[in-house]
Amino acid sequence: MNPNIRINGKRLRESLETMAKIGGTPNGGVQRLALSDEDKTARDLLCKWLKEIDCEVFYDEMGNIFGKRAGTKPELTPIMSGSHGDSQPKGGRFDGILGVMGALEVLRTLHENKVELLRPVMLVQWTNEEGSRFSPAMVSSGVWSGALTKEWAYSRTDRDGKTQGAEIERIGYKGKLPCKNWPTHAYYELHIEQGPMLEKKGMTIGAPKGILCLHWYDIYLKGAANQVGPTPMEGRNDALVAASEMILKVNELPAKMGGNMVATVGEIQCMPNSRNIIPDDVHFTVDIRSWDDELAIKAWEDLLNDFKAISEKRGTPMKHEITWRVEHAPFNRKMVDRVISNAKAFNYPVMEWVSGAGHDASYMNQVAPTAMVFVPSIGGRSHVECEDTKWEDCEAGANVLLHSIMQSANEVE
Amino acid sequence: MNPNIRINGKRLRESLETMAKIGGTPNGGVQRLALSDEDKTARDLLCKWLKEIDCEVFYDEMGNIFGKRAGTKPELTPIMSGSHGDSQPKGGRFDGILGVMGALEVLRTLHENKVELLRPVMLVQWTNEEGSRFSPAMVSSGVWSGALTKEWAYSRTDRDGKTQGAEIERIGYKGKLPCKNWPTHAYYELHIEQGPMLEKKGMTIGAPKGILCLHWYDIYLKGAANQVGPTPMEGRNDALVAASEMILKVNELPAKMGGNMVATVGEIQCMPNSRNIIPDDVHFTVDIRSWDDELAIKAWEDLLNDFKAISEKRGTPMKHEITWRVEHAPFNRKMVDRVISNAKAFNYPVMEWVSGAGHDASYMNQVAPTAMVFVPSIGGRSHVECEDTKWEDCEAGANVLLHSIMQSANEVE
Repeated sequence: MNPNIRINGKRLRESLETMAKIGGTPNGGVQRLALSDEDKTARDLLCKWLKEIDCEVFYDEMGNIFGKRAGTKPELTPIMSGSHGDSQPKGGRFDGILGVMGALEVLRTLHENKVELLRPVMLVQWTNEEGSRFSPAMVSSGVWSGALTKEWAYSRTDRDGKTQGAEIERIGYKGKLPCKNWPTHAYYELHIEQGPMLEKKGMTIGAPKGILCLHWYDIYLKGAANQVGPTPMEGRNDALVAASEMILKVNELPAKMGGNMVATVGEIQCMPNSRNIIPDDVHFTVDIRSWDDELAIKAWEDLLNDFKAISEKRGTPMKHEITWRVEHAPFNRKMVDRVISNAKAFNYPVMEWVSGAGHDASYMNQVAPTAMVFVPSIGGRSHVECEDTKWEDCEAGANVLLHSIMQSANEVE
Repeated sequence: MNPNIRINGKRLRESLETMAKIGGTPNGGVQRLALSDEDKTARDLLCKWLKEIDCEVFYDEMGNIFGKRAGTKPELTPIMSGSHGDSQPKGGRFDGILGVMGALEVLRTLHENKVELLRPVMLVQWTNEEGSRFSPAMVSSGVWSGALTKEWAYSRTDRDGKTQGAEIERIGYKGKLPCKNWPTHAYYELHIEQGPMLEKKGMTIGAPKGILCLHWYDIYLKGAANQVGPTPMEGRNDALVAASEMILKVNELPAKMGGNMVATVGEIQCMPNSRNIIPDDVHFTVDIRSWDDELAIKAWEDLLNDFKAISEKRGTPMKHEITWRVEHAPFNRKMVDRVISNAKAFNYPVMEWVSGAGHDASYMNQVAPTAMVFVPSIGGRSHVECEDTKWEDCEAGANVLLHSIMQSANEVE
């Protein structure tokens, strides 16, 4: 590779800063919910920018936007790269949009350098990755990959009862093109890490070898509701006390099991949730992730034994549901190695890592060879207004993306 | 005393069963919320019953209903007895209404036996003791005793935005009589225990020596919200994990401190309460009750030290509020002893006990000599549709109430 071809870091920063103004919050974050007016404004700007560099611009029936740069061998399958343009409520300036602006910067660089590549290169901006206005997350890459149906995605409603389908149409991005995957040679997604590890290890680039397995559980505990004053401690059946003991077990689980694993209780409901009544109905969630699916299952079994003992001891009968289990997903090894070697060619400190979170790349990985490029999140913070990444790290990520795309785009097979 | 004068257990049961039909639920409970149409129907019936036995019936500006039986010395201050007619949502058939029907049964017994007593005897039914439609609880005995103002009580709204004042008027029970305490010689309240102790000890009657102190605290924890997948366990600031450790400390507190004490976390809020985000904002309540105010304060101080250490260790800064502190309230010793000796005269197994919950008697105790008569709650259950008490225990409680009232009513001083 020729490291003299580089993206324009200043231009990338300006694109990101311009986008950050659309839905910008007073605290320096971004609120650009999927299919909102802000989302439309940002989409219009993206399409304008793509047309300025002679890309063919179109969108499908889910509102996924594509910007296609021709290759010299149009019969070859394309390289795709992108991410999402929507944000969390009070989210940050980098999550998602960095991957779109990074791909745009790659196309601009190829355009101004008149680089000829065998394969077409396509930017893609996926609709509603965050899932915070319409659940679930990653919905449109899910439909495109065939994992979810369009009809179901259309029917999802926000808090005001508006459907996703109607909102895609309202903002003018319901295309006629079916949302259905086509043969793709490679998919690259540039994204912030959203965790603290790259910064901690002094790295500029992370090359995730894949996405952790994701196991979700729901726990339901029954207690006996009674007035707290007249009910002695002995003989109480307090569902919240039982849940508390269980939550600590979840927190201790990764250390107990060893290996690379995280385990979290993010959500709890307590009924009747009145300060002078003993809780009789508690629900909480468990999220376990690991590169090692078997270890994660073993951890759950261990946890379930602990839960059963606690439920027995506290007299709070328990039900549990195995809500969702997704196996760990290794990315394309050759592409991961390409990301690493391109980072090395630029002398960027690089490490192989894993993706703990799901991305549009998770669904793409099911239908096309896929890899990601991670850049550090300052303090590991994401989904918050203070989400931040150094401009030079954004630039570095886009350079690695550029050369990885160029190499894939010149592969005949 | 003459234990041959007894209330009519069959009639008491019929009164209770008739009242239980007004707002009766399919599961055998009662839903008769304060100032609802059901409350009005029950009030109308109570007034009718009082008039049938020649009581003077009137109500004050809070809708508290009084039924006055004349004494032979009208210049002497009255004996009062009663409780509340409203229920919890999906509440039981005894909580509150037993004290009203018990007092009615006493008046009926005095009437049919033409018993002459020096002092007037007044039944009282307090408006909105439960506080479940309009908070707070015990509001009208609170206004009557001078602890709360009428204006504030009127302004309290339910979920539909209706004010308590307007609803008292709507059901036709806003009287002209000021809601203000008058000199009272004694107040007795018959009530179910709402705890399991009388049943456990094989008692028929409980004579609470007073009401436990009540200390309420609010705890607020800050964590760092992050995506759970990319955020390693080490270095997390998980506010829910910190709260769970604290909730277990609350549960262990009474055993640690010794003495008669209960400590409970009944309410918790967790934000953002999303299964894949580390909780960064948790609020929970602490309720500590004891007969020994000092021990309860010491327990809080001990707890607060534990909380601070946990907050420090977990990196989750804490704020706390001392929300409410009410000292323990001893009832009138002579009257408590009278309840005990009357129970003994009937050969009812009796024990001195405490009231862990607040009652209208709590406020009455601030302005008049007060005592209560407890009867057992089957399984200690209350505020639920399966709330139950044996009919013979209701009868026993009303007999003790009858003779206690008779004795107080014949005291010249």
